[in-house]
Amino acid sequence: MILPSKTVERLSQYRRVLQKYQYLSEPYIFSHDLAKLLRIKPVQVRRDLMLMGISGNYRNGYRVTDLLASINTTLTFPKSQFATIIGMGNLGQSLLKHISTNPECPVSVKAVFDTNPKYFNHQILGIDCYDITRLPEMIKKLNIKIAILCLVSEDIQTIIDILNDSGIKGIVNYIAGPIRVPDHIYFKEYDIRTTLDEMSYFISQ
Amino acid sequence: MILPSKTVERLSQYRRVLQKYQYLSEPYIFSHDLAKLLRIKPVQVRRDLMLMGISGNYRNGYRVTDLLASINTTLTFPKSQFATIIGMGNLGQSLLKHISTNPECPVSVKAVFDTNPKYFNHQILGIDCYDITRLPEMIKKLNIKIAILCLVSEDIQTIIDILNDSGIKGIVNYIAGPIRVPDHIYFKEYDIRTTLDEMSYFISQ
Repeated sequence: MILPSKTVERLSQYRRVLQKYQYLSEPYIFSHDLAKLLRIKPVQVRRDLMLMGISGNYRNGYRVTDLLASINTTLTFPKSQFATIIGMGNLGQSLLKHISTNPECPVSVKAVFDTNPKYFNHQILGIDCYDITRLPEMIKKLNIKIAILCLVSEDIQTIIDILNDSGIKGIVNYIAGPIRVPDHIYFKEYDIRTTLDEMSYFISQ
Repeated sequence: MILPSKTVERLSQYRRVLQKYQYLSEPYIFSHDLAKLLRIKPVQVRRDLMLMGISGNYRNGYRVTDLLASINTTLTFPKSQFATIIGMGNLGQSLLKHISTNPECPVSVKAVFDTNPKYFNHQILGIDCYDITRLPEMIKKLNIKIAILCLVSEDIQTIIDILNDSGIKGIVNYIAGPIRVPDHIYFKEYDIRTTLDEMSYFISQ
């Protein structure tokens, strides 16, 4: 059974809370404690966990180690997917560092790309950096499935089209700007401009 | 009338599309063209614009300049809110650059903060950088209402509490980790770890 997208998102968040919680002396956690930490309703936590076939008991709640093991089995193993970061400016390098130094991250960055020749055939934080024109070749060769876009470019749509043709299955876009992504690609946008527009609107009311 | 959050988000996106569109020779745009560019349904576009009191006509659609003017009036004016970025690593500096070089951005960064003494009382991209211990003082003094968190810290919850006590009304968090934010603060999380967990799950199915 494929879980709903929102459930997977919350499982990822439960895991993060539980990873910290496991170092406390308390071997059990109640759904309302988990819910409180994530600012959601306890019934939501119970429903999500039930979808994985787990139910707690009224007296003790859920055993933390069991819960963690189940979530780990349901979500993919660490470093099981290959990713690339496109654009090695400040933002790209900061994400590369964040992902490579995090042992639990589900992806492993196999190569990075930029348009600046000074990076070509050099390593950045131990990862090979290539000319962006080599995207189709290297993505297929290295079996990369996830692309993280950190490049300010007028040709961003061309890059999306190349990624699609090269077999990329998921894209995270950090660059503001309307782009067309085919439906079969899992797509997520982190758009600071829209967020700031929203925030300014609501705090001005 | 306060617009729904999702409508405001889409207004921001319509504006971005229209800003590009206005340089084309076509003075009108149809709701289905706007919808297609943003991968939503035309009826959604028409509903959002009707909430602002705008309706197009069947023959020509909407006049681009009128639409842009209305959205500009509805959303806040450029640089009308004061913001800060906390954490001047690669990520913080890249966001500072992105926001300060974008004339349409609704916020103006008035100060930045870090824990590293090498930055104290220096300017980064023309903006004063302060010791993070001066957060409560400077936020009040400079009338800052939005905080963008780019700091990896064990004490992130303490920082959130300080921001709340200092009168911050909106927080964008780039740092993974469960934090508790009071309900009266407008809060948005850009969490690459959860996104990658979700993406890895779905493309592995």
